[in-house]
Amino acid sequence: MKLVEKNSVEFVEVLASKAAVPGGGGAAALVGAIGTALGSMVCNLTIGKKKYAEYEEKVKEILSKATQIQDELLKMVDEDAENFLPLSKAYGIKASTEEEKKIKEETMEKALKTACEVPIKIVRTCYDAIKLHEELVDKGSRLAISDIGVGVQCLRAALISGQLNVIININSIKDEEYVKKVKEETDRLVSEGTKLADEVYKKVEEILCK
Amino acid sequence: MKLVEKNSVEFVEVLASKAAVPGGGGAAALVGAIGTALGSMVCNLTIGKKKYAEYEEKVKEILSKATQIQDELLKMVDEDAENFLPLSKAYGIKASTEEEKKIKEETMEKALKTACEVPIKIVRTCYDAIKLHEELVDKGSRLAISDIGVGVQCLRAALISGQLNVIININSIKDEEYVKKVKEETDRLVSEGTKLADEVYKKVEEILCK
Repeated sequence: MKLVEKNSVEFVEVLASKAAVPGGGGAAALVGAIGTALGSMVCNLTIGKKKYAEYEEKVKEILSKATQIQDELLKMVDEDAENFLPLSKAYGIKASTEEEKKIKEETMEKALKTACEVPIKIVRTCYDAIKLHEELVDKGSRLAISDIGVGVQCLRAALISGQLNVIININSIKDEEYVKKVKEETDRLVSEGTKLADEVYKKVEEILCK
Repeated sequence: MKLVEKNSVEFVEVLASKAAVPGGGGAAALVGAIGTALGSMVCNLTIGKKKYAEYEEKVKEILSKATQIQDELLKMVDEDAENFLPLSKAYGIKASTEEEKKIKEETMEKALKTACEVPIKIVRTCYDAIKLHEELVDKGSRLAISDIGVGVQCLRAALISGQLNVIININSIKDEEYVKKVKEETDRLVSEGTKLADEVYKKVEEILCK
């Protein structure tokens, strides 16, 4: 059974257990999907409303992008679990001779890069979804303004969580060029993304508290 | 069917739709449960390990508290949806005469307080769960340190989201004493809780990046 086919009670239970998967990566992907879905909800509550007719086309475009991101993040919940398998196997390789040690090292290096794939994608997609929420603050229905705030907070958490799961893997990767490239990209997206998420949240708070 | 009985794909889909529930409150409760479960996972990966034997009893205690909070937050996903019903009905009450207007106003006031109940509980329980993560940074298995970081970020998001859902309701409540009391409690818990979550996250980051 796929992880996303579990109901919320089951998912949270297996997450809390010491089972190897899901872990922080899968949790981050799901929280990112929840955050993105709140943006989609705001779009759905805006489309068709006379008051927001001038933004109709733009909001439909945001909804289309959000729906795609949401689906990608849901897929990543299981993809992250699958990508952990090679690493889990590599840890178990016995290596006594120099030859064996070399093979283990190479296998580990490859498996660590595989384990990085989903966390990197989480950072990228959550950054994109935060950008969509930025547009929604001005164009989405005011009746759902608090949901934009919740959405952007979930995405901020998923973005940072994606990065944490990149870091635990690149800490053991020897390919310096790869590490530098991944670190640079994710650091930039997380730094810009959290700043943007905080700005969007501040706007929501100002609207709600005025 | 209860909302927590839906699988992740179904839950995210109905969240994204314009259906009245689930909304930001239910999403916050689920994200809080996910964050708390990551703390439980760290406990489960620590218990029984010789290296952490000195913390064994304390970690078992944290796990017991976390499991309780996690169950409470999962229940709140559906409770929040049920608590929205009276408000949704009250909005629809027709009121032409002064007598009818008075009845509608009283019904609204009561329904708004009911709608506040779960968001207030989300703020309280997520604050408690962040405190548990604070203890886990020093006492939990270092192999799962990134999961404490993800857990605390999810709880930070859920804590703030709970508050947003308190605000949208108390904005329309006329009972000033109630509003003051709720505002004071949630403001304090969110202010302290986000500060604490950021400190816990910083510790995790320092350990991972050293």
